[in-house]
Amino acid sequence: MPTEQGNAQGSSPAAASGIGRRGALLAGGAVLAAGIGAAAAELARGDRTDGRSVTAGAGAPPAATAISFHGTRQAGVLAPQQPATHLLAFDLPRTSAAADRKTLREVLGALTGTLATAASEAPADPRLQSGATTRLTSLVGIGPAAAARLRLDVPASLAVLPAFPGDRLDPRRGDGDLLVQLCAADRWTLTVVAELVAAAARSAGAVPRWTQSGFMAPTAPGTTPRNLFGSKDGTANPDRAAADQWVWGPSGAHRDGTVLVYRRIHMDVAGFGALPEGKRDRVIGRRAGDGSPLSGTAEHDEPDVYAKNPDGSYVIPATAHVRLASPRLDRGARMLRRSYSYDDGPDDRGLLFCAFMRDLNQFVRVQERLATRDALNPFVQHRASAVAYVLPGAGKSGTLGDGLWT
Amino acid sequence: MPTEQGNAQGSSPAAASGIGRRGALLAGGAVLAAGIGAAAAELARGDRTDGRSVTAGAGAPPAATAISFHGTRQAGVLAPQQPATHLLAFDLPRTSAAADRKTLREVLGALTGTLATAASEAPADPRLQSGATTRLTSLVGIGPAAAARLRLDVPASLAVLPAFPGDRLDPRRGDGDLLVQLCAADRWTLTVVAELVAAAARSAGAVPRWTQSGFMAPTAPGTTPRNLFGSKDGTANPDRAAADQWVWGPSGAHRDGTVLVYRRIHMDVAGFGALPEGKRDRVIGRRAGDGSPLSGTAEHDEPDVYAKNPDGSYVIPATAHVRLASPRLDRGARMLRRSYSYDDGPDDRGLLFCAFMRDLNQFVRVQERLATRDALNPFVQHRASAVAYVLPGAGKSGTLGDGLWT
Repeated sequence: MPTEQGNAQGSSPAAASGIGRRGALLAGGAVLAAGIGAAAAELARGDRTDGRSVTAGAGAPPAATAISFHGTRQAGVLAPQQPATHLLAFDLPRTSAAADRKTLREVLGALTGTLATAASEAPADPRLQSGATTRLTSLVGIGPAAAARLRLDVPASLAVLPAFPGDRLDPRRGDGDLLVQLCAADRWTLTVVAELVAAAARSAGAVPRWTQSGFMAPTAPGTTPRNLFGSKDGTANPDRAAADQWVWGPSGAHRDGTVLVYRRIHMDVAGFGALPEGKRDRVIGRRAGDGSPLSGTAEHDEPDVYAKNPDGSYVIPATAHVRLASPRLDRGARMLRRSYSYDDGPDDRGLLFCAFMRDLNQFVRVQERLATRDALNPFVQHRASAVAYVLPGAGKSGTLGDGLWT
Repeated sequence: MPTEQGNAQGSSPAAASGIGRRGALLAGGAVLAAGIGAAAAELARGDRTDGRSVTAGAGAPPAATAISFHGTRQAGVLAPQQPATHLLAFDLPRTSAAADRKTLREVLGALTGTLATAASEAPADPRLQSGATTRLTSLVGIGPAAAARLRLDVPASLAVLPAFPGDRLDPRRGDGDLLVQLCAADRWTLTVVAELVAAAARSAGAVPRWTQSGFMAPTAPGTTPRNLFGSKDGTANPDRAAADQWVWGPSGAHRDGTVLVYRRIHMDVAGFGALPEGKRDRVIGRRAGDGSPLSGTAEHDEPDVYAKNPDGSYVIPATAHVRLASPRLDRGARMLRRSYSYDDGPDDRGLLFCAFMRDLNQFVRVQERLATRDALNPFVQHRASAVAYVLPGAGKSGTLGDGLWT
């Protein structure tokens, strides 16, 4: 029904009807606009006063407009978080650096064309012409090993992560020279587009390495999604000013890029669920019910890591997850977290931790604290890991990675 | 937001808003009501004159009402097809028949409670309290081996399927004494409820056997979902009168039950896609674009298996899929097909064929023709199989399987 699909940059009857439906669902509550245009508008408004983050639109029902592939920043980071994700990693053939540079250029050209078409109002594949708009968003990133070997222009912090205590990483499920993250409202779109992306990358010379799918809890607009432990995940995400300081950049050639850290974290859902509720809340440092920190009364209260009980003990225990991950221990640094849950069978469920940051060391510092002291550690295991420099976006006549070849 | 959730048997403001949104999406097109109450109303209206089937609501955006677990027939067959599915199979311990009968009774009691609560307006698990209603539907069925061994009162046709030419069945992914199919609007709900179902079944003595997840193409209300080959799948589904004749029953104790055939069919998507479009259409016997049979001009035109070209050849080729599956070759018998796609990695994608029928031989007769002659065979492979007697529904004071114990 192409007549119903408005321009992504403007409003449309269908988008209005979507907002109307959300309004009905919220029964008069705050209505947060979704879609990249709205997200950009939200970012442009600057800091919000209600304490919600730039990803507050997570889980919003999809509007009936496509999200344009083109822009100064890739839509897979910028647009509100969508219900489903699919990641694909590829390697380059590792012949000579010169040959691999040429291959990478061809792969990025092929991916630019494939992703722009798949995300458009008129995707070429008939399986994406269902009457519903796909709402595909994507990001493409470069792994640290390839960046070093091919002398690409990437941020100085991009590196292979150090080993952390407790890591049980499967290299067949992590790393890679090239990372593609697809997000959409539904799994069907991801499966079809993943097939197109893999075919495009392979035909340009890339070698498939791993794939992983994930999904998000249905989440009312303006609220934070839960993970399989039942915890709200992403509460302390940065607002716009903090994102400019801690997520995008560094300034200069990389100001519209960011670094993605991906961790496939197996969760012992039954084991954690067997703890009494009060104990679970002390492990996390927040109350599962409303997500409020133990030091406060509302989800968006800043956790007070210095607050003490009358007996002198910390209100948020010394090994609580939120304490060790607190920006207060890290000069205010915040990562933009957009994690998903995964379900790879009854014995392997957990979290696909996805976080975006300017400097990889933001993650390293937090993870060093968590890996040694987090009370959650008996219930989680990091089983795969990847890092990528998420390229700046491509304009309508541009190609992803145009800035890599200095 | 319980104030918005109407009774599943009645109308509600939320349901009205859902219909309003669909109406907007359809821009004045036919609005098909969704939800089990609406589905029942549709069934009660009798045959439709527009040629659409009783599953025409497939892919409808979920309304904001829960779908009651309770009813004379299980909602997992009766309600409009939902976007996502998850199947779980269990075995009984195979001690003595008497002990296994007792275990089965306890498992069915546990499943009745778990599924009724999870599908209710107020599911107990906080991970299902997202503000969005789960729209969970489910069905529970009994495998033929268990039915025979435990002398349960099931339809006489229930049996293990014969081997078909080309079968490459993995027993670790098929069969089972007890089958549970969950359906919902989203994968999160399925993952959480699957965990609850598995815990309930295990604690009552059942042994997990296999699980499988699947999903559907986003599909505008009133249209037929596509599979990964791009073909519309489910066009010839029965209307209400045909469903009473061919899907439910046989009459008597089993009139509100049905038999499910599940086939996990691997599809060579790249291989089929490499055929020229005209060739693909002759393999299927329908045009991929609009789903019309080669003998007609619209999707719901009945395929004319006798129509010939001027040169004397059949318009629908002798080995075309729709010819061999045609009800005309089978005294009008129709199965209710509610298939899903699956994506278990780049090398294993395909179809979860799910079909409901009164008599298992309806499937056997079609599959015998397809397995020997279908032009699709070079591109598909049946890799797992299961059969189950889908029990009649349970009323508010009843338990699934109350009629098994004669």
